[in-house]
Amino acid sequence: MKLKNLGEYGLVNEITGWLQASLRKPVRDKTVIVPPGDDAAVIKSPKRPLIFTTDMLFEDMHFCLSWAGAAGGRKAFFEALGYKSLAVNLSDLSSMGAKPAPIYCLIGVGLPESIEVEDVRSLYRGLNKFCNKYNITIIGGDTNASQKLTIAITLVGIAGSHTTRRSGAKPGDKIYLSGPLGDSAAGLHVLLNPVKPRSKHFSRFLSTLRIRKNLIRKHFYPPVRIKEAQSIAKQASSMIDCSDGLVNSINLICEMSKTGAAINLDLIPVSPGLKQYSRLASVNPMDVALYGGEDYELIFTSKKPLSGFKSLGTIENKNKGIKYYLNDKETKIKKEKLYQHFK
Amino acid sequence: MKLKNLGEYGLVNEITGWLQASLRKPVRDKTVIVPPGDDAAVIKSPKRPLIFTTDMLFEDMHFCLSWAGAAGGRKAFFEALGYKSLAVNLSDLSSMGAKPAPIYCLIGVGLPESIEVEDVRSLYRGLNKFCNKYNITIIGGDTNASQKLTIAITLVGIAGSHTTRRSGAKPGDKIYLSGPLGDSAAGLHVLLNPVKPRSKHFSRFLSTLRIRKNLIRKHFYPPVRIKEAQSIAKQASSMIDCSDGLVNSINLICEMSKTGAAINLDLIPVSPGLKQYSRLASVNPMDVALYGGEDYELIFTSKKPLSGFKSLGTIENKNKGIKYYLNDKETKIKKEKLYQHFK
Repeated sequence: MKLKNLGEYGLVNEITGWLQASLRKPVRDKTVIVPPGDDAAVIKSPKRPLIFTTDMLFEDMHFCLSWAGAAGGRKAFFEALGYKSLAVNLSDLSSMGAKPAPIYCLIGVGLPESIEVEDVRSLYRGLNKFCNKYNITIIGGDTNASQKLTIAITLVGIAGSHTTRRSGAKPGDKIYLSGPLGDSAAGLHVLLNPVKPRSKHFSRFLSTLRIRKNLIRKHFYPPVRIKEAQSIAKQASSMIDCSDGLVNSINLICEMSKTGAAINLDLIPVSPGLKQYSRLASVNPMDVALYGGEDYELIFTSKKPLSGFKSLGTIENKNKGIKYYLNDKETKIKKEKLYQHFK
Repeated sequence: MKLKNLGEYGLVNEITGWLQASLRKPVRDKTVIVPPGDDAAVIKSPKRPLIFTTDMLFEDMHFCLSWAGAAGGRKAFFEALGYKSLAVNLSDLSSMGAKPAPIYCLIGVGLPESIEVEDVRSLYRGLNKFCNKYNITIIGGDTNASQKLTIAITLVGIAGSHTTRRSGAKPGDKIYLSGPLGDSAAGLHVLLNPVKPRSKHFSRFLSTLRIRKNLIRKHFYPPVRIKEAQSIAKQASSMIDCSDGLVNSINLICEMSKTGAAINLDLIPVSPGLKQYSRLASVNPMDVALYGGEDYELIFTSKKPLSGFKSLGTIENKNKGIKYYLNDKETKIKKEKLYQHFK
């Protein structure tokens, strides 16, 4: 069977099933608190449980070397890439409620011939910058020649007092979001559709340059809500990071919690920058916010209201399905816009 | 600067230097027992130190999908690939003296369009087979679309009572090897030079089929000396796994221990299979054993004689350099045959 017929989430489900075999032995089972299938894995350890995650970034799948120009040159681009590749990993730990420190990290890189030593230096400068900001220590790695630039990162940290999984949402729980959606996807849109300054439109180009720059920055330097997640985790019944867009994230929470959901699209926070860019580039800001992904904001559910966060919907019974509303009218999800690998 | 001008080991040295910045903070330093630059990293933990390693395997760099035929078909090939990708990682833990259990594992895969669901199933069957044999639990992973099949594995285990680094060899120490060298590289030679049966030479083909099959098997199913390493670690002053060939391994031990060495090539153990194949394929068995790599036998040094292991040389003072002897005559190393990425 072709992978595209199964899709990314189908394949992950298959693999998770195959791995049950390796977890079935009772001795092993006892030490694995959260098995494969969540944002991160949790295992028992003498003092506090340890929490693990791994993520890979592939050239021409997650990023393109041709973006260097729009991203401020090769040096800035590789530094941003290093920073971001750690951010996506730490986001997985934070969405489970991991402690902010100590966190250790292993970095595997595959380097094609087109990469120079200076590029690798910039990549590691970005990695180090992130490590210093979030108090992470790089303890090891692997360097290889490869045909496409590849970055594989593994993080290990200590689980917080509350481990929040994808599967704990209950009907009646409110659904919350830690920040605005769509900026990162809009930044990607800028990278994929760079505008060259033309003398005729130069003043307009200049006036919108800042908007585009800020969105690219949000794409490469996403927020990591690890400290916020610590306080959220105490009350949240489920939590996930918004890596593949709101719709995919809600689907995952509902599938694993065996629930439905009702989402009010009017309540999804969208930044002023995204609104401005949407007019500029003639894109629908709601589509960008819904399907875009890579914002790494936290989506979480809670029975009790959480101060400082606006609810955008409610968890429903499974038989009600997952429904989206705009201006009080039910609106259909564009399934073809949902991001999945292999599709 | 081009990566090939620096070479793999040069680049690793550079990266290790850059990472010092992230380790310089005293708070972090205290918890890192073995920093980047060895087979595996070791960090402090409440009961016993934890030990970490990560390794990536790239299509067309470490393996080719075109080998499937020679490796016994697509199913056997992907299963072997899964098995081997874990073996190379566990070998890194074992050469530091890690405990055989518990060991946890994260598996990242990049899957191109040419791969089918059945291939992924076979890959995970091989991974599970290895996990069952060595009591390893797969706790997480990442699946992505990519242009080339990529496997990135991270292992975490518990350090044994003795952690044996590359850097502890002292002049006068004897150099030992845990098993024969060259079989894996000969297996690779078979895969790269498959022989098609021709009616004229069919009986000869059949009689040598078994030799070739065994060598391919040694390439994909290398031994992992994790239990042996436990007893060796108590007396060894330094240890490394022979992943890039004997010469590269000796170079690394001497560089990190700041010593020289004298190696007697007559004493390097070579299997009967390799000897037979060398005649068959007109290759020099000593070259295969010296430069081939991927045998994953342990190379270690010790002041006291270690029963059950034959010494193949002695650690010398740094100013004596690293010298190889054949029939009591010094022999030159063919530097162009040394395996390094980027070269």
